[in-house]
Amino acid sequence: MKAAVFIQPGRIELVDKPIPDVGPNDALVRITTTTLCGTDVHILKGEYPVAPGLTVGHEPVGIIEKLGSSVVGYREGQRVIAGAICPNFNSYAAQDGVPSQDGSYLVESGRCACHGYKATAGWRFGNLIDGTQAEYVLVPDAQANLAPIPDGLSDEQVLMCPDIMSTGFKGAENANIRIGDSVAIFAQGPIGLCATAGARLLGASTIIAIDGNSHRLDIARGMGADVTLNFRECDVIEEILKLTGGRGVDASIEALGTQSTFETALRVLKPGGTLSSLGVYSEDLTIPLSAFAAGLGDHRINTALCPGGKERMRRLLNIVASGRVDLGPLVSHEYRLDDIVAAYDLFANQRDNVLKVAIKPH
Amino acid sequence: MKAAVFIQPGRIELVDKPIPDVGPNDALVRITTTTLCGTDVHILKGEYPVAPGLTVGHEPVGIIEKLGSSVVGYREGQRVIAGAICPNFNSYAAQDGVPSQDGSYLVESGRCACHGYKATAGWRFGNLIDGTQAEYVLVPDAQANLAPIPDGLSDEQVLMCPDIMSTGFKGAENANIRIGDSVAIFAQGPIGLCATAGARLLGASTIIAIDGNSHRLDIARGMGADVTLNFRECDVIEEILKLTGGRGVDASIEALGTQSTFETALRVLKPGGTLSSLGVYSEDLTIPLSAFAAGLGDHRINTALCPGGKERMRRLLNIVASGRVDLGPLVSHEYRLDDIVAAYDLFANQRDNVLKVAIKPH
Amino acid sequence: MKAAVFIQPGRIELVDKPIPDVGPNDALVRITTTTLCGTDVHILKGEYPVAPGLTVGHEPVGIIEKLGSSVVGYREGQRVIAGAICPNFNSYAAQDGVPSQDGSYLVESGRCACHGYKATAGWRFGNLIDGTQAEYVLVPDAQANLAPIPDGLSDEQVLMCPDIMSTGFKGAENANIRIGDSVAIFAQGPIGLCATAGARLLGASTIIAIDGNSHRLDIARGMGADVTLNFRECDVIEEILKLTGGRGVDASIEALGTQSTFETALRVLKPGGTLSSLGVYSEDLTIPLSAFAAGLGDHRINTALCPGGKERMRRLLNIVASGRVDLGPLVSHEYRLDDIVAAYDLFANQRDNVLKVAIKPH
Amino acid sequence: MKAAVFIQPGRIELVDKPIPDVGPNDALVRITTTTLCGTDVHILKGEYPVAPGLTVGHEPVGIIEKLGSSVVGYREGQRVIAGAICPNFNSYAAQDGVPSQDGSYLVESGRCACHGYKATAGWRFGNLIDGTQAEYVLVPDAQANLAPIPDGLSDEQVLMCPDIMSTGFKGAENANIRIGDSVAIFAQGPIGLCATAGARLLGASTIIAIDGNSHRLDIARGMGADVTLNFRECDVIEEILKLTGGRGVDASIEALGTQSTFETALRVLKPGGTLSSLGVYSEDLTIPLSAFAAGLGDHRINTALCPGGKERMRRLLNIVASGRVDLGPLVSHEYRLDDIVAAYDLFANQRDNVLKVAIKPH
Repeated sequence: MKAAVFIQPGRIELVDKPIPDVGPNDALVRITTTTLCGTDVHILKGEYPVAPGLTVGHEPVGIIEKLGSSVVGYREGQRVIAGAICPNFNSYAAQDGVPSQDGSYLVESGRCACHGYKATAGWRFGNLIDGTQAEYVLVPDAQANLAPIPDGLSDEQVLMCPDIMSTGFKGAENANIRIGDSVAIFAQGPIGLCATAGARLLGASTIIAIDGNSHRLDIARGMGADVTLNFRECDVIEEILKLTGGRGVDASIEALGTQSTFETALRVLKPGGTLSSLGVYSEDLTIPLSAFAAGLGDHRINTALCPGGKERMRRLLNIVASGRVDLGPLVSHEYRLDDIVAAYDLFANQRDNVLKVAIKPH
Repeated sequence: MKAAVFIQPGRIELVDKPIPDVGPNDALVRITTTTLCGTDVHILKGEYPVAPGLTVGHEPVGIIEKLGSSVVGYREGQRVIAGAICPNFNSYAAQDGVPSQDGSYLVESGRCACHGYKATAGWRFGNLIDGTQAEYVLVPDAQANLAPIPDGLSDEQVLMCPDIMSTGFKGAENANIRIGDSVAIFAQGPIGLCATAGARLLGASTIIAIDGNSHRLDIARGMGADVTLNFRECDVIEEILKLTGGRGVDASIEALGTQSTFETALRVLKPGGTLSSLGVYSEDLTIPLSAFAAGLGDHRINTALCPGGKERMRRLLNIVASGRVDLGPLVSHEYRLDDIVAAYDLFANQRDNVLKVAIKPH
Repeated sequence: MKAAVFIQPGRIELVDKPIPDVGPNDALVRITTTTLCGTDVHILKGEYPVAPGLTVGHEPVGIIEKLGSSVVGYREGQRVIAGAICPNFNSYAAQDGVPSQDGSYLVESGRCACHGYKATAGWRFGNLIDGTQAEYVLVPDAQANLAPIPDGLSDEQVLMCPDIMSTGFKGAENANIRIGDSVAIFAQGPIGLCATAGARLLGASTIIAIDGNSHRLDIARGMGADVTLNFRECDVIEEILKLTGGRGVDASIEALGTQSTFETALRVLKPGGTLSSLGVYSEDLTIPLSAFAAGLGDHRINTALCPGGKERMRRLLNIVASGRVDLGPLVSHEYRLDDIVAAYDLFANQRDNVLKVAIKPH
Repeated sequence: MKAAVFIQPGRIELVDKPIPDVGPNDALVRITTTTLCGTDVHILKGEYPVAPGLTVGHEPVGIIEKLGSSVVGYREGQRVIAGAICPNFNSYAAQDGVPSQDGSYLVESGRCACHGYKATAGWRFGNLIDGTQAEYVLVPDAQANLAPIPDGLSDEQVLMCPDIMSTGFKGAENANIRIGDSVAIFAQGPIGLCATAGARLLGASTIIAIDGNSHRLDIARGMGADVTLNFRECDVIEEILKLTGGRGVDASIEALGTQSTFETALRVLKPGGTLSSLGVYSEDLTIPLSAFAAGLGDHRINTALCPGGKERMRRLLNIVASGRVDLGPLVSHEYRLDDIVAAYDLFANQRDNVLKVAIKPH
């Protein structure tokens, strides 16, 4: 089968690989659509290390080709997705409430003596095992991770569920939003847009979306933002204080991963408010004393990795099926798997107002 | 009446002041015992600014001398305490769940246009209004803040309730402790010791207390620590990983306010764990990327200011009355109000294994 | 001033009363609009006892006529509302998280030795003190309870905030709704309709509204119901199981107060689900063993009384101002205060598809 | 192997059965100690139906005899326990937060079309599959359910973990206990005693244990009760109101399963309080209107089935290992498996102050 693999920093290429064998708890899924993620670009650039030869990609939409002998309740030929994070739900970490941090696979495969908790190790596709930018993907712990696609939904409609939607919504959930809250979302890339949609879904009454790209701010309004602020055109802190009557927002969501967005997210927060952080940071963060009330402000800072598992996927698919949220506008481009190198080039360079690229292996 | 007032950096002195008038929602309390706090030392040194002439101190134990005309359900002559934080519970911030951050007093007195939320402004005694290191103190919003002392409890037994116990216990509450958790508490000064007692009270099964002072570690064992670590004698991170089977602690509590304790508290935390921060920091904090899983570790960082109000005090007084926790060992010294300058000297210089000093105005 | 008072069972009449005096913590509000509530009908019929001569009504929209000497931050002439529940936020019950159950007023006025907690005693207007169906109402603890109306909102737009909207939304909040939940709401009177709107606001993806009145079911669809079921035309339990793939709903909301709705709400609930109860029951309830898994189903039953206070009102007013929810369709009729006896007659007999009646004193 | 099986109502007998085969996700455990539960007595009496021929018992302490091919991280010969509830953690119900209600086994084995949620179906041992009162037991989903016993703990010390301790502690957890709460626990059989210990562990300051058996009340004091009330000797409601200053308890825990205990638990509860129900009821329950404030008291009623899984067991084992709670006094008798019929006779008739009986197969 064809698979996009990491060769070395700067090179992801399409190669031929054998279709994997199916163990008792696995499922083989024929990919019909997958996509590229910002993380994949970090891998491409060598900023996030993976093993050379690994198939990249972590957002599977497809059809069950073959089920392991212990996997029940599914049928071959069924359309399914699986979360970008596909943990072992039998693990200590999953039973402890943090499946995304399950490192049991690493322990069991002898790759780490991490005692079952390893930050981000619930993310396996395209990180620890072969991923989804291929004709087929092997889904481990399939009983816990395969989620049937409701009738009538297209691949494109559900393509955001495995990662972007689950992550963005988690950002809103982690913000402790209550009815009538004001919420500021910093950065309106695909994850920030999903966080905006999530804040709307959870009852915030003043949703402020911030970005420097007016195209993305237009889409943010469609996702539920009441107000958009272009940081190139205004003083964001001043505007947010004005919008909240001087009180600060009840919650802010960081969806980029920089010191600047993190710090501003803290500065606009009321005492007692919650900063929900989604970004992947690439250097140490500084918490300025003044923005933090010297540690006495009853602030909360919550971080998250994308939740996975079939129940999470089922809920997100229901949201899509109900029409509550339409993430269609996020799929801006489509490429064949054969042209994935070109797709990476477009996406990594953020040309042509690209948001998300659908990749079609067949 | 005699009152200890801030004169200028380096000088807190006993002066004579008029006994304050009592408004309709106030109560005048004759202080029988109060104490010194680390914050008072910051004020003394000029590191935390207050108005010259302000009476310092924020931990009142005493007897109601006079009640305002609108205050009901109390009687003159009754023994009471009030929280170090005595907010206006009618405020937006209090109704929003963060009374300690209530800035309505500042708005109403024309001292700030802060719209009702102002970090730490629920702390009024010895900060925004005259405090408790005096013969009498005026308690504002007395209906919300006066808490009767149960029969049979001495001043010394309840002296920690207004601040240290409420703060330390909040640190344990903010740590999201569940039955069977492992918890590490960094620094075993009075607040850290109370956090240790609080973690014990909330069902942690492995409580690890860390300090560099062996006298304090001895007391920590009495407060409920299962293990004590002297950071001068071992590698704290290594020891904690060993004690938790490589997993990291479920929660860590920072009770000092330095980069070093904050950072270590984060480094020993499992993915998915909670860092409960109590310290008053004096400079910007750094969150090291590696300790934070680049923002993807499902970590929580919670800060707090001491909770106040008569219901909080009632609960803490019940804990003392039930014998669950004995904070007697924390009161290491006693001084007369007349000798408060000497008491500050002892306390500020941490001589003679001082923990807390009882001050007796009468 | 004119005031509608309870005379005896079957008789509420308009009488003349003196305009009340204003104490230091009170505010006198000139009512511009108020409404009738189902509870008022219970009072009228003598099913809920109040003192003869008491002014009834508990939903104030009006203008500040006079402020008590201790009330700050408002101005006479300002448009305000106050919650139907206007508790003393200085009380133990309020500080303990249940202001609606604050009985301190009863203790203080010598009417009850209830130690500060008395079920429903946070409800004072038209229950324990003179209410809002009058030209003026005296708002106690005004600092905690007066909520300014945002510019541009009409009386009718905010008339539901004090009671119906706060109660219905609390029903949705108490249902522990998570993203993607299925929720069934039993009865679509004004409170049930608000609960439907609240469930929509909180992220449910399958909202099922049940009633026997097709007019109300039409309105329910406008409030956010995905599916409506007329219990006169189908087997509700069977339909709900079908709609949820046999799983049962994640949460059900009871908004009527009968054995039948309560029991059905429990029977359609998944194991692990939450029944949020809003109804005022008039007889003992039975929990059928089979619907309750003999007590082993990880079920939750939560009850609530309408939340009050200015911060709650502020949030609801924000929801209205943001356009998230339009409760205009609930105000089906308007009467002058002079004609209130006729309004009661219409409302008590549920004629003419009445939902809520606006009452205009001036 | 020898196994105690249900024959017909009134008859549980020791029979010979083949040692079960081990599938890829199973583990075979040689039982070293197990115990009898009240549920087993219901089975014996025919009040709770199970299939004739089923091996009864659900509390395994033993040694791994053989591991399935997919089960990793354990070794044969290792001492382990498993929860009475041993769910499939890959299921929708488990991922949805209620593993005890997982009915996926029933769906997969074709025994029920319950769509994956079935009340109590997470309980498999001695209910849906062969149980633990035998020489060997087959543990399904072993990767999720096997919990190693810490060195140095005896079988008797950990025998309560699989069921009684997990259930009783869950009763305390479900009571929403906060620091300084008053809690009343109704019935002090083994589960009630564990709930008492759990309430102590979670920070309650006034723990009131109620029973009619003075021997059990003596043990309750050892488990942490501050006050014990013998309902044969006092008016429980009156006493509890006196003990709480007229306020009612913050939480009550029902640990028997009768109308009388449930109703009293509700009558002593403050408005805003939580009733945590653990009992297995055998008839419809009545909620008296007066005890329930007609549905307006902000009450919570939470039910639970024993939590299982290896992480839950790990935490309970840690509590035992830490010495926080000593449940040794609950094991009042010991019998050989050969004498299990006599053990049932003693236990079912509650002779000789029996609490729990250790059963030794080898």
